[in-house]
Amino acid sequence: MTALANDTLLRALRREPTPYVPVWLMRQAGRYLPEYNALRAKAGSFLALATNPSLATEVTLQPLARFPLDAAILFSDILTVPDAMGLGLSFAEGEGPRFARPARDEASIAALAPPDLAKLRYVFDAVAEIKRALAGRVPLLGFAGSPFTLACYMIEGGASADYASVRTMVVARPDLLERIVDVNARAVAAYLAEQIRAGADAVMLFDTWGGLLSPDAYRRFSLAPMQAILASLPAAVPTIVFSKGAHASLEALVNAGASCVGLDWTADLAVARRRFGDTVAFQGNLDPIALLADPASVERAARAVVEQAGPAPGFVFNLGHGVVPATPPDNVAAVVGAVHAMSRNGP
Amino acid sequence: MTALANDTLLRALRREPTPYVPVWLMRQAGRYLPEYNALRAKAGSFLALATNPSLATEVTLQPLARFPLDAAILFSDILTVPDAMGLGLSFAEGEGPRFARPARDEASIAALAPPDLAKLRYVFDAVAEIKRALAGRVPLLGFAGSPFTLACYMIEGGASADYASVRTMVVARPDLLERIVDVNARAVAAYLAEQIRAGADAVMLFDTWGGLLSPDAYRRFSLAPMQAILASLPAAVPTIVFSKGAHASLEALVNAGASCVGLDWTADLAVARRRFGDTVAFQGNLDPIALLADPASVERAARAVVEQAGPAPGFVFNLGHGVVPATPPDNVAAVVGAVHAMSRNGP
Repeated sequence: MTALANDTLLRALRREPTPYVPVWLMRQAGRYLPEYNALRAKAGSFLALATNPSLATEVTLQPLARFPLDAAILFSDILTVPDAMGLGLSFAEGEGPRFARPARDEASIAALAPPDLAKLRYVFDAVAEIKRALAGRVPLLGFAGSPFTLACYMIEGGASADYASVRTMVVARPDLLERIVDVNARAVAAYLAEQIRAGADAVMLFDTWGGLLSPDAYRRFSLAPMQAILASLPAAVPTIVFSKGAHASLEALVNAGASCVGLDWTADLAVARRRFGDTVAFQGNLDPIALLADPASVERAARAVVEQAGPAPGFVFNLGHGVVPATPPDNVAAVVGAVHAMSRNGP
Repeated sequence: MTALANDTLLRALRREPTPYVPVWLMRQAGRYLPEYNALRAKAGSFLALATNPSLATEVTLQPLARFPLDAAILFSDILTVPDAMGLGLSFAEGEGPRFARPARDEASIAALAPPDLAKLRYVFDAVAEIKRALAGRVPLLGFAGSPFTLACYMIEGGASADYASVRTMVVARPDLLERIVDVNARAVAAYLAEQIRAGADAVMLFDTWGGLLSPDAYRRFSLAPMQAILASLPAAVPTIVFSKGAHASLEALVNAGASCVGLDWTADLAVARRRFGDTVAFQGNLDPIALLADPASVERAARAVVEQAGPAPGFVFNLGHGVVPATPPDNVAAVVGAVHAMSRNGP
């Protein structure tokens, strides 16, 4: 293991003091960067980038060449895991993901099994190549989708306005939904363990859709399988769990076993830090849409988030969801600069 | 004033004992009912129904002919108010609402003013006609959109996937957004007062989009104008406020001045009742998508909500959002029957 030149992220995740508040942004590599769009056009598609370790490495490093970010995050997609299970992932141009073989009836759900990790070799190769390319500058974050969020796409066959099939299954066939999230939990646990072996310094679980559920259903179908994954990972590796919109279960999420809880922009960061700042680190939570405003307004909004977080250790600045494609790159520079400058000078 | 044969809803809103838990459902009159679709086809459009007092009365009464519901709710649309301000409302077939003249720049926002209530006469006439047709069977609920939710449609010119213009305005031009919600608050206060004069027994504020905001922005742009409206209404009339997804501000919402807080299906009803059941009544909160399951599962899910609410007075059963068009009417019958039966027998 190489010692890291900048380990502020890992220290913050462990709630140790840092010289300033570390910053990284969900989807910091992506369509708001002209150099990303150029490389994607050359490669032909999103999946061509994500499945090629050298291209994935290049994309992962693009935002670090522009901004003094405190972490790199593996460029990949949460749906690599169900794809490796044989569901047949594709991305139609200008549309969301599609599975050729969704898991929505009893037979297709019974047939599900965690994938052979050899089918995900391209991901672990990318982790190793990014790690070498970073040469210890900043930590590398690995990630996976939560078992429930993967189930949402697997059952619906793609993105959905309301995930009606999944929410109907919650009440009509909880046994089937439990079977899917159980398979997914075993798959994700093995997948993240292998990302860590390949060099990831910390890992994050993205639970985009758990917040669609009632609190009881959230705890059973989203939180419980995430807890199982978190318990299975090596204790020395910091972990982040992000469950968009699951506000009613914040206390349960804080106690799920992750080092850090990511908050979306509708959560109350100040209250969360006050209540649970001695238990976990927090990450968040500027509204990503705020980055569409003028630079002075963007900086003001970013500073307000740091003020809400307060001076105690254990805070990682991020957005409350991913960077949107219309974001001017200069506004990302403004956010990173403002957070670093104000936290270096004390709150 | 006619005495009501069934006043369980009003008693529950006032946290007085009731012989059973009263039930009504958001969008209980609508596209899941064949008789609604038939009348709409004959009238030609949704707006043709909503702007004709006799047709609006017929639609309002349709679900009461089928199910032993404990309230009627005025059939109308929240966007009648900005339409009366001159924004030019239309509904394209199969699409959402559209405004011909959105309020998105400084000049159009400066020109906004509360509408002449004479332009909304058709709504007050509908309230009076429904009241006569009900002949005291159950109470009639009036309603309006929240100032912030109306602003969302007025600024975007219709529905939006992410309300990006509004969320950018929150950080870039809070002065403009404040001006819109202030005009809307004065308009809605006058509009609801007139519905009450025409015969509405209780009124509800629908804040569909406040939960998209950060807690600070929610309190400033959504909650504060709702508080102003609630404070302006006659104290004897019970009020309900429903702010979808605004979980981080539940305590502030509880103290906003409404008799009852409506919860969506991702809120924790049991916790809310335990913490704040002595302060306000609660309404909610079955996932509307649960009504797409088989009748036995639907009944089980409805009973679970009543169990979470517990036996204390001050609970109104409802869904966590509106009935969806694919709902089988028999499942609505199952829900109403199950809630009445189990609460009559004690919890």
